[in-house]
Amino acid sequence: MKTILIIGAGKSSKVLVDFLLKDSQAKDRKLILADVDVQEAEEKLGGHPAGTATGIDIHDSKRLGALVKEADLVVSMVPAFLHPLVAKVSLKEGKHFFSASYESPEMSALAGEIKQKGLFFLNECGLDPGIDHMSAMKLIDAEKEEGHDIVLFKSYCGGLLSPESESDNPWKYKFTWNPRNVVLAGQSTSRFIRNGRYKFIPYHMLFRRTDLVTFKEVGDFDGYANRDSLGYRKVYGLEGIPTIIRGTLRRAGFCKSWDVLVQLGMTDDSFEMDLPQDFTLRMFTNSFLPYDPVHRVEEKIIRLLPWVDSMIVEKLAWLGLFEDAPLPAFKGSPAKILQLILEERWKLSPADKDMVVMQHQLESVAVGGVRKKIVSSMIVHGESHEYTAMAKTVGLSLAAAVDLFLEGRIKATGLYLPTNKEIYLPILDVLAKNGIHFEEELIPLED
Amino acid sequence: MKTILIIGAGKSSKVLVDFLLKDSQAKDRKLILADVDVQEAEEKLGGHPAGTATGIDIHDSKRLGALVKEADLVVSMVPAFLHPLVAKVSLKEGKHFFSASYESPEMSALAGEIKQKGLFFLNECGLDPGIDHMSAMKLIDAEKEEGHDIVLFKSYCGGLLSPESESDNPWKYKFTWNPRNVVLAGQSTSRFIRNGRYKFIPYHMLFRRTDLVTFKEVGDFDGYANRDSLGYRKVYGLEGIPTIIRGTLRRAGFCKSWDVLVQLGMTDDSFEMDLPQDFTLRMFTNSFLPYDPVHRVEEKIIRLLPWVDSMIVEKLAWLGLFEDAPLPAFKGSPAKILQLILEERWKLSPADKDMVVMQHQLESVAVGGVRKKIVSSMIVHGESHEYTAMAKTVGLSLAAAVDLFLEGRIKATGLYLPTNKEIYLPILDVLAKNGIHFEEELIPLED
Repeated sequence: MKTILIIGAGKSSKVLVDFLLKDSQAKDRKLILADVDVQEAEEKLGGHPAGTATGIDIHDSKRLGALVKEADLVVSMVPAFLHPLVAKVSLKEGKHFFSASYESPEMSALAGEIKQKGLFFLNECGLDPGIDHMSAMKLIDAEKEEGHDIVLFKSYCGGLLSPESESDNPWKYKFTWNPRNVVLAGQSTSRFIRNGRYKFIPYHMLFRRTDLVTFKEVGDFDGYANRDSLGYRKVYGLEGIPTIIRGTLRRAGFCKSWDVLVQLGMTDDSFEMDLPQDFTLRMFTNSFLPYDPVHRVEEKIIRLLPWVDSMIVEKLAWLGLFEDAPLPAFKGSPAKILQLILEERWKLSPADKDMVVMQHQLESVAVGGVRKKIVSSMIVHGESHEYTAMAKTVGLSLAAAVDLFLEGRIKATGLYLPTNKEIYLPILDVLAKNGIHFEEELIPLED
Repeated sequence: MKTILIIGAGKSSKVLVDFLLKDSQAKDRKLILADVDVQEAEEKLGGHPAGTATGIDIHDSKRLGALVKEADLVVSMVPAFLHPLVAKVSLKEGKHFFSASYESPEMSALAGEIKQKGLFFLNECGLDPGIDHMSAMKLIDAEKEEGHDIVLFKSYCGGLLSPESESDNPWKYKFTWNPRNVVLAGQSTSRFIRNGRYKFIPYHMLFRRTDLVTFKEVGDFDGYANRDSLGYRKVYGLEGIPTIIRGTLRRAGFCKSWDVLVQLGMTDDSFEMDLPQDFTLRMFTNSFLPYDPVHRVEEKIIRLLPWVDSMIVEKLAWLGLFEDAPLPAFKGSPAKILQLILEERWKLSPADKDMVVMQHQLESVAVGGVRKKIVSSMIVHGESHEYTAMAKTVGLSLAAAVDLFLEGRIKATGLYLPTNKEIYLPILDVLAKNGIHFEEELIPLED
């Protein structure tokens, strides 16, 4: 009998737990789900006989050590900064380790010891990072095997609303994941390379310099460049490629409107405001605008940012930013206060469904000089409050990796991302069987 | 006999040393000038019999303690972050302490002990901070004594080129002080209050939202708001004032051109570039612009920032930003590389003279409701390489404070800024006698 320890019973863990419990008896497996909140863990297990819920304080190293010792492998679903803690205990107790988060430098430092102990540690096996790596590498490896030279690679991903839930909202956006990360998104200078030219986009230019990304089934999106695409040349084995960009998707038109909040300074997280208790939403907005006794707040925005049109002003109005209602908080950074304002408008209602979209664009040149362009797209719709597109894509990727490893179909020792064919191929197969798949299109080149 | 210990023989110390040595024999004083570089200290003393140069490693606490013990008071001219170290040793040895730098929280924490030991510690007694506080408080206290209600206070300061040195340079600017601080200036959100409205200006808006500040003798300047003006309500005893702004001055037109560098991302200090060795100045500029195979770099700037006109493009060209010459460095943040580019063009030549300008604007209401506006302006011209306007304003303020304290004309114990009448009045008198004075004008109100 194999014991799987999952630490953290948060958003994505329901899908993960359900998948692993499904044929746990046939596969002779036991699952321990540990969380600060035992009740949360119990609910997620739904009374399944192969599952045990348990409470844990992650900082109680004795208890953590004892729990890990009981298991054959550990799935870490804790907040990102705590993964190294769980990884170190797993390493000490000689247990395999899985996570959907970025491999931190602290994690990378363990590589030698992991290999030496014959363990398998897999990080970045969720959606983004996760499915992005796996599907990208499948495309890239296939092109390389045909002897083609890859000259362009662009990859975009977005967690958004499903089209049927977009209609009651001019932004066509709600928070389907961590609101703070959405408000602060893009605050590190974006770096990429296009046609051999290094490009650096500072935050205040990012939402103006977007690319149009189109999905045949669900339409147009704005893609803005992620923080550091340059580092992915090495990760994806694309050293020397003249164009590589990774980006994030929002519905077409979102970025131009969001940019107003950026330009005004409302997403600034660098200082704490301490505002009077009678401050209203309208006064908050006005505090980022020049003093001007003649023009109204709405007019001042257009005077300061001449590209703002009436549709954008309407979107800002829909957020409540011109209302004489009290602010949700008077202390905190502008970004924190904006987040609270947005959370009132961008909260998912029970009927709302989310959607995850991902698209890779690849151009290659065959030996004879023939160029081709492949566009590979994934669209995943949320099903319910628990089976959201986000939870499905993260939870199933991780669950598939764990299942395949226990089945002996992934055989590796050391510290990995899912960029190796031996790892990504079987996982992508499991995802496809569960409705998460890419459609590939060969696009005629126009120039 | 009194012994003055000056630690640091940098830019402003020549003026300071000269002033204190002038009548040292008549006043029975000895001066020790300590620096890492003894030769530098010796040169500054110019062989004066009352002066002794000595070497010091500021981190050698035994040696520092021994030096401080020899003195009656300590003038700290070290880099800002080292002041608390010098202050603590002075406190321990029971010596008075003077500096021209901002009072840090670490310094503030010593207040109780300073008072208890009957010592006098004075910080922020240079130009800005320094002369700004003293001249502001003189105006403010005078209005308060007349029973007037101060409704507006704006205060601007700039370290610039003297008009006779502006002509060979379309920016009318060179580095007359720390280049790194100039390149990074304004990167913290500016906060002030205008007509009772809180105002927050993010960095990327700062150089567009400037005020016009005029000096009868030397013309027009752009004033951009400093980091935090709100805190000065308390420092200046202006709690409840509806308008307070402190700002920095550049020649009129400078800010609109500088804003291009800000908008492009060239002043970004948040990440390290690692550029190929064949990168040119033109490629550096292009790396902040969108990829576009049709338009030239100059054209792309105008397309991205439509308010850029041909005069601004010429200013950028004058900096070398469109040249095919190699970059001065290939590694470092954009701000660091930009600084190196600017240092080649904005370096003071031996013939160049600098200029310091300061202006306060104050509006008050008398009991009967009569409003008045006072504009108080200071212009200081540099005389030579060593007697720059910067060095004179910083060095003389500090020297006057030390002299007046030793003469018993400033009598106080505790931790101070020069905002008390007993401190600022005699210092401003000494400055006036040395050519550093304010012209006050009563301005008719127009509205």
